[in-house]
Amino acid sequence: MLCLKSKTEDAWLARAIADTPALLIDHAHCERKAASQALALLSAYPGHPELIAPVVTIAHEELEHFTLICGILAARGLVIEAQGPTGYQAGLFKKVRKEEPGRLIDKLLVAALIEARSCERFKLLSQHHPDPELRQIFGDLLASEARHHADFVRLAELQADRGEIHDRLRHLAEVEVRAIERAKPLPRIHS
Amino acid sequence: MLCLKSKTEDAWLARAIADTPALLIDHAHCERKAASQALALLSAYPGHPELIAPVVTIAHEELEHFTLICGILAARGLVIEAQGPTGYQAGLFKKVRKEEPGRLIDKLLVAALIEARSCERFKLLSQHHPDPELRQIFGDLLASEARHHADFVRLAELQADRGEIHDRLRHLAEVEVRAIERAKPLPRIHS
Repeated sequence: MLCLKSKTEDAWLARAIADTPALLIDHAHCERKAASQALALLSAYPGHPELIAPVVTIAHEELEHFTLICGILAARGLVIEAQGPTGYQAGLFKKVRKEEPGRLIDKLLVAALIEARSCERFKLLSQHHPDPELRQIFGDLLASEARHHADFVRLAELQADRGEIHDRLRHLAEVEVRAIERAKPLPRIHS
Repeated sequence: MLCLKSKTEDAWLARAIADTPALLIDHAHCERKAASQALALLSAYPGHPELIAPVVTIAHEELEHFTLICGILAARGLVIEAQGPTGYQAGLFKKVRKEEPGRLIDKLLVAALIEARSCERFKLLSQHHPDPELRQIFGDLLASEARHHADFVRLAELQADRGEIHDRLRHLAEVEVRAIERAKPLPRIHS
């Protein structure tokens, strides 16, 4: 359903569980960045009114999740720190086409794939993390990641022929596999 | 109360009323940009947990206003278009200090001044625009602009001595007067 072309390895889960503070700090960054990237899409494509309502809804939800995770960080005495890139997003975005409408389509599909990978990994955390509070939280959040994935695919489908969109999604899903394999092995959502 | 050092001239109101579609399109951009700039502040200052809740609340509200104005544009058959800068924001941000904590303080005070100018002009539109729907909308929005102004000043006051913050606010308010005077004379909120 999520279009991912690889399953996350056990080594990722072990890293994530072994440094849960770093994972939670990264998660807060991911939610804030997702909201910023949603707004950047509206800035880059002002002449696409079909994007406005769904993308604004996604941005609101990402901000609500950011607030939720910041609350968990504060309750655990953790402070968000700046962090460098893992190379995952760069690996994906460098394959975004330069010409329109391919550029918008690819940006939407890349956003869909990032949400899909989050969803797959939140599910693993909801099943296997030793902390029951975090199992609950990741379980609650994975439904909205799945919904955002579907929203971005649906918005891409409005831009061109459905078959063409799904061919491109399959291609970018292969790119995503290489990007996640090559990302630095850190305790992060996308690494 | 709003710390502005100049009153908007009648010529601005005349321009805004004479090209209301352009004014509304600019207003939509302003709300989206304000939300983006709020998130950029959280990105640049991850180690400042005191910023998170108030700045996220401001971003949510700016996005709600963006949605409201996009609805008005759609109802009037208007589509948001890309637009170039007027020079107003550039004129303000070039005076932001390079070193911390001055840099964060100045970014917060510049944000406060932009909200103050919006508030002053929304009040003029709520009193003098010939369209009753728009008088009502600008009247409804000006209270939240005033609240955002106060929020940004309060966040700045957390970063240094209150007297020092208000000296700096008075200085930046003089900068704001020059920025708004030098902005291109277009039918925009800040021009």
